[in-house]
Amino acid sequence: MREIAILGIGQTPVKENFEQSLREIAGEAIISALKDAGRESADGLFVGNMLSGMLSKQENLGALIADWVGMRGKEAFKIEAACGSGAAALRMALMAVASGELDSAIAVGVEKMTETKGSETTAALATAADADYEVVHGPSFVALNALVMQRYLHEYHWKHTDFAPFSINAHANAMHNPYARLHEPITEKDYERARMIADPINLLDASPIGDGAAAAYIVPLETLKGTSRSLSNGRPIVKIIASAAATDTLAIHSRSRPLWLTAAERSVSEAYKQAGLNPTDIDLFELHDAFSIMAALSLEACGFAPPGQGVRLALEGEIGIQGRIPIATRGGLKARGHPVGATGLYQVVEVVQQLRGEAGPTQVPDARIGMAQNIGGSGATIITHILQIA
Amino acid sequence: MREIAILGIGQTPVKENFEQSLREIAGEAIISALKDAGRESADGLFVGNMLSGMLSKQENLGALIADWVGMRGKEAFKIEAACGSGAAALRMALMAVASGELDSAIAVGVEKMTETKGSETTAALATAADADYEVVHGPSFVALNALVMQRYLHEYHWKHTDFAPFSINAHANAMHNPYARLHEPITEKDYERARMIADPINLLDASPIGDGAAAAYIVPLETLKGTSRSLSNGRPIVKIIASAAATDTLAIHSRSRPLWLTAAERSVSEAYKQAGLNPTDIDLFELHDAFSIMAALSLEACGFAPPGQGVRLALEGEIGIQGRIPIATRGGLKARGHPVGATGLYQVVEVVQQLRGEAGPTQVPDARIGMAQNIGGSGATIITHILQIA
Repeated sequence: MREIAILGIGQTPVKENFEQSLREIAGEAIISALKDAGRESADGLFVGNMLSGMLSKQENLGALIADWVGMRGKEAFKIEAACGSGAAALRMALMAVASGELDSAIAVGVEKMTETKGSETTAALATAADADYEVVHGPSFVALNALVMQRYLHEYHWKHTDFAPFSINAHANAMHNPYARLHEPITEKDYERARMIADPINLLDASPIGDGAAAAYIVPLETLKGTSRSLSNGRPIVKIIASAAATDTLAIHSRSRPLWLTAAERSVSEAYKQAGLNPTDIDLFELHDAFSIMAALSLEACGFAPPGQGVRLALEGEIGIQGRIPIATRGGLKARGHPVGATGLYQVVEVVQQLRGEAGPTQVPDARIGMAQNIGGSGATIITHILQIA
Repeated sequence: MREIAILGIGQTPVKENFEQSLREIAGEAIISALKDAGRESADGLFVGNMLSGMLSKQENLGALIADWVGMRGKEAFKIEAACGSGAAALRMALMAVASGELDSAIAVGVEKMTETKGSETTAALATAADADYEVVHGPSFVALNALVMQRYLHEYHWKHTDFAPFSINAHANAMHNPYARLHEPITEKDYERARMIADPINLLDASPIGDGAAAAYIVPLETLKGTSRSLSNGRPIVKIIASAAATDTLAIHSRSRPLWLTAAERSVSEAYKQAGLNPTDIDLFELHDAFSIMAALSLEACGFAPPGQGVRLALEGEIGIQGRIPIATRGGLKARGHPVGATGLYQVVEVVQQLRGEAGPTQVPDARIGMAQNIGGSGATIITHILQIA
């Protein structure tokens, strides 16, 4: 397989974007990535998106967006894996370039989800769960995650407030990310007083939705040889040293261990194997904190804490920029925001920022290896990428 | 790039299927393909589907279907390119295996579209067109194709009845395909008298929707070496000798030549180049006859007739089994039926049947090289595959 480098990144601010259409938002991120890469076009476009058919009455996004960004004619498809669509699109782009079918590709994740009624968006998000065996009983996607959190509290004897550090850390980091949706530092008191959504998940356990797009421009590393380790603009080249995806049942009730993200473990184990690394080698981890419970479960499944002890890592301050495993360094899903199909690419863009040393006040010191993990459904589709300075 | 072989195929009868859910239909095709391939599982699953979110309230199809067919844990995604989703999924599976990331993969196309109200299905299908610049004006997807057909009649001076042979041929061939939705031979008189849908497209110009799934099991050809040219069950090995995708604008009004399928020409030229072939080498062509006008335009863009002369080929009997370029040999979209996201894989399955010599009364004599072309939108996303006996 050809080694893959990320040559350019782009993103749009996560917000309620009533001014731009779906294609315009995606276009803005792609044009930024092209500019960052110093390229005018690419051989193919892979669009990560979950909700466009339901919320924007628009499918066929590959051709639509390719045309919009001046890539009319080029190969282009949409990839869907619920909230894991963004990383899935990157993985497809990677396989297209690695196979030799394409010599360059853009992966873009895009979602527009705030222009519809809340009830419509909630119903659309529930399509990430099992329609026939879960959603038929009435739970929203938040409610399903609430069942998991409730079980976690019961099983491992934590108090709800023990989860506060996850949200506090994410909000604090987002203060320095101009692309983040929320720029409000929060305190433990704020967390305790937050409005209940689906017991025990309160407003500050849950990530906000949003409109946004993020993109990455990839090429075979071999085509950059001779330019040493940095690009013409002086930026270090970042390469993808691992890419792995795994699945699990959609329905949480079908899993023998509902508190264990089997697909995360499977995907990350494969990624560690590909990269020849273990958890202690990871300098930062952009994980899928759609809900604070998911942050804890991700840390555990990826080997940073024993089962039931992800919360302890947060309580001990180890998830901060100076901690043992910094997470949500640019705000995470919790405060950067969660435009579902775009999230996986925001995570990758943020890891690239860290490895390039462009993360400003939330720069992880000497970051050389970063990991991003994107989750579709309540742990059903999980994609892990590990990036390293070339 | 590793050469790819199709080891197994599977399909379900296209029909109004109220007995089976989306996952069950897909599962049936996949299990058939596994059985045909003599395998128990695959490394990855690529699901071509367009409408599941809108019509079945179900996304995250990759993990959902992987779990259902005993592939829990394996990598799986959904690929969407409107009615071209099926071939897009095959192309993604091919790139995954060609890159060396996977050593085997299943591409399945599945669609369930008859259980919803007709108006809902029609609205969902319109998401293949440009929501902001076409659909906003009110046309359905059929109406957009009717504009193209009207222009073709005007420009090239054909009568509507000149298109009759496309439908007559498709219906005649479908009589011998147990998986086809329609088993009714039609005459020129039937065609002339058919109910008008969107002038000049009448009921017998349009393909029927349906529920169904088709699947292909692929492996690197090199892993089959030593088994000579046939599998253990005596069937010849079929390999993919070309795979190419291209795009065009979604909105027909944005194209300088609305009667020319630029993306088909681009995709097929690349495919011919990969295979080192030209149109005269193709023994049969499963084209995307969603409407009879699309059959004519496809023949022209792929080099089988000059612009405006695709209809002549049909009138002269050259599209029949014994003709110069047999099309819709198992019924085509017109009579096998068009479960949109599945169609691209039905086409490939049918080409494999022909190359294996398993096409019964509609067997093309000495078929060695077959082509399948799948179209998403009114020519917006076009994927071409050429298959050959290994």
